[in-house]
Amino acid sequence: MAKLTDTALAAAVDSLPGWVVRDEKLHREYQFPDFVHAFGFMATAAIAIEAMNHHPEWSNVWNRVVVDLTTHDAGGITAKDILLAEKLEELAKRLQ
Amino acid sequence: MAKLTDTALAAAVDSLPGWVVRDEKLHREYQFPDFVHAFGFMATAAIAIEAMNHHPEWSNVWNRVVVDLTTHDAGGITAKDILLAEKLEELAKRLQ
Amino acid sequence: MAKLTDTALAAAVDSLPGWVVRDEKLHREYQFPDFVHAFGFMATAAIAIEAMNHHPEWSNVWNRVVVDLTTHDAGGITAKDILLAEKLEELAKRLQ
Amino acid sequence: MAKLTDTALAAAVDSLPGWVVRDEKLHREYQFPDFVHAFGFMATAAIAIEAMNHHPEWSNVWNRVVVDLTTHDAGGITAKDILLAEKLEELAKRLQ
Repeated sequence: MAKLTDTALAAAVDSLPGWVVRDEKLHREYQFPDFVHAFGFMATAAIAIEAMNHHPEWSNVWNRVVVDLTTHDAGGITAKDILLAEKLEELAKRLQ
Repeated sequence: MAKLTDTALAAAVDSLPGWVVRDEKLHREYQFPDFVHAFGFMATAAIAIEAMNHHPEWSNVWNRVVVDLTTHDAGGITAKDILLAEKLEELAKRLQ
Repeated sequence: MAKLTDTALAAAVDSLPGWVVRDEKLHREYQFPDFVHAFGFMATAAIAIEAMNHHPEWSNVWNRVVVDLTTHDAGGITAKDILLAEKLEELAKRLQ
Repeated sequence: MAKLTDTALAAAVDSLPGWVVRDEKLHREYQFPDFVHAFGFMATAAIAIEAMNHHPEWSNVWNRVVVDLTTHDAGGITAKDILLAEKLEELAKRLQ
């Protein structure tokens, strides 16, 4: 699993509305109606995440969830992070 | 918290598409795209359920969730069950 | 994945205290202190379950969780069910 | 709900091993065997948290969970934060 080139990363981020590159990580801030929906998103995503064997850095305060994705073994953002971002998007949209 | 009259129960069930009365419980069977969405619904609902202090009888097999609601103290279906059914509907719709 | 022989199944069940064979499924009934611990067990187990790609039939009423395991493709109990039972035991013990 | 006095806060923190005051918040870093146990703790705690109607700032990276507690309305740490810390301790101990 190799770090994405700048060109590949830029193209991937373009296809992921709401996501940006910050501190060399794929970064997204979500807002939900309340804690039930925000943490419900995390609990749902956790089930998919463990099966992907690729885990986010993420935090929650009441109705907000902040996510940072990187692949430590590759020293940067890889295709695994893009796949995880796409999965998080699919699930977050449902609970927002 | 009193058991709903037959008239009140019939009116409440009319306002809850997909729900029926079965074995004197409010009954609903949900289908989701897969286990992640089905159990994600349950994990999200669990957060709301404990705060309502009213708990369902529910079961899960892969993408399916079956729910039965009753109020044991009242010996039947009460307004608490209607409120829980409405909350479950709001959350289930998002993950279906 | 083949159905376990009667001998292999008997040996496996012997190594799983609390589990019995019922209706040709591996069956276990858990009791927890309350809903938070019972459903917390399920939410924790769900993360491991999806990664095993083998799902239980399970139900919850307040502090109780009932689990039935079988492998539909094999028409009976297989080594996959034993592995899942062992994982559920490890997690359930923590929250009981 | 009033901010705890320095004396009351010091006494409370003394009774909560592993917790410190950092940036005027009650702070704790947990380590678990893996993601299943770490996020299982969060998913379990979330059910209790919503019922307490008092929410943490918390983050997760694989097997680690970091928690910060404060009461925004009171501009500091209150008895609500102590109660939440005690509940988190009870649940975290089980999954560590």
